[in-house]
Amino acid sequence: MNHYPSSILNLIKSFSKLPGVGGKTAERLAIHLLRAPLKEAEQLSRSIMELKEKTRLCSKCFSLSDSELCKICGDLSRDASLLCVVEHPADMVAIEKSGAFKGMYHILQGALSPMDNIGPDHLRIKELIERVVGGSVKEIVIATGTNVEGEATASYLAERLARYPARVSRIASGVPIGGDLKYIDQVTLKAAMEKRHEF
Amino acid sequence: MNHYPSSILNLIKSFSKLPGVGGKTAERLAIHLLRAPLKEAEQLSRSIMELKEKTRLCSKCFSLSDSELCKICGDLSRDASLLCVVEHPADMVAIEKSGAFKGMYHILQGALSPMDNIGPDHLRIKELIERVVGGSVKEIVIATGTNVEGEATASYLAERLARYPARVSRIASGVPIGGDLKYIDQVTLKAAMEKRHEF
Repeated sequence: MNHYPSSILNLIKSFSKLPGVGGKTAERLAIHLLRAPLKEAEQLSRSIMELKEKTRLCSKCFSLSDSELCKICGDLSRDASLLCVVEHPADMVAIEKSGAFKGMYHILQGALSPMDNIGPDHLRIKELIERVVGGSVKEIVIATGTNVEGEATASYLAERLARYPARVSRIASGVPIGGDLKYIDQVTLKAAMEKRHEF
Repeated sequence: MNHYPSSILNLIKSFSKLPGVGGKTAERLAIHLLRAPLKEAEQLSRSIMELKEKTRLCSKCFSLSDSELCKICGDLSRDASLLCVVEHPADMVAIEKSGAFKGMYHILQGALSPMDNIGPDHLRIKELIERVVGGSVKEIVIATGTNVEGEATASYLAERLARYPARVSRIASGVPIGGDLKYIDQVTLKAAMEKRHEF
């Protein structure tokens, strides 16, 4: 490996730190970029910095955004009376891809996990309650994962939300138990969304 | 995919252009960098630009370098009377990894290929002859590929070099026919280097 000059070795080292990228792949990627047009390399380099500089959380739903409000929260054509609660931004992306949901989202930024010291105050639950208190939300679909932490979070939220007039539903358990929401196929996700049921 | 903000989409798009990186992998890499420390992302971004800015060809052997002379050409402990001719820098790296060669290199930057309009003037052959004319080179090991273009290039070089006193040898044909030098295992490469024979 150290038969390359350091300008190449440094990039191989940086690429190797990415998940699923081993030494051989990192070498191949570096050599590719060396031969690629300068513009392509510049674009990749700039995109990485812009990702870190511009990406923030939407101030309303806490999904990933590059402005104060994310695309969905700023979209007036969506049904603001329907609120889907998920753990992570990638879960929201998975549901969006299924096309089964046209309401708004609320991204908790995780699930309750006493083992990892993650309690209600570490998640965006206070902000969720605030959105529901307003009274314009008619239904809250809880789409946290179907693993232990996700189910516990769903039960906790159902309890907290019971005192408000909004209907609280849970995404249907067509989702395989223990599965990570963002890796589930879109058809299953769509079915699970359509079959959502009352707590 | 367009459910992400553009700061993330742009990076996914840039990653997707890399060889062997599909949409799913590009998404995973982008999300990884989003969560990674700023320093890791900055390092990757900077390494990419430095690769393009600093990497050049060694003025003597035409391998990749980040200075006027590459590490090997600047290494006085190596045998300057032995010259190994390869097509690409990656071929040199493969031979270095085998540890079977302690001489100098000359990287042609390709092989003769009339089909692709690559003639002797497109390769660093003139510069190779100049290095041999000096008289300090005692043996030239031709380690171009064993495919049609590599063999044609080897024959052409053997003919051009015949008038000089240096011994001209060819890397042994233990190398599988049609194989790409940089993907061959180090043991085979070492055997082929040791069994090199006269033209």
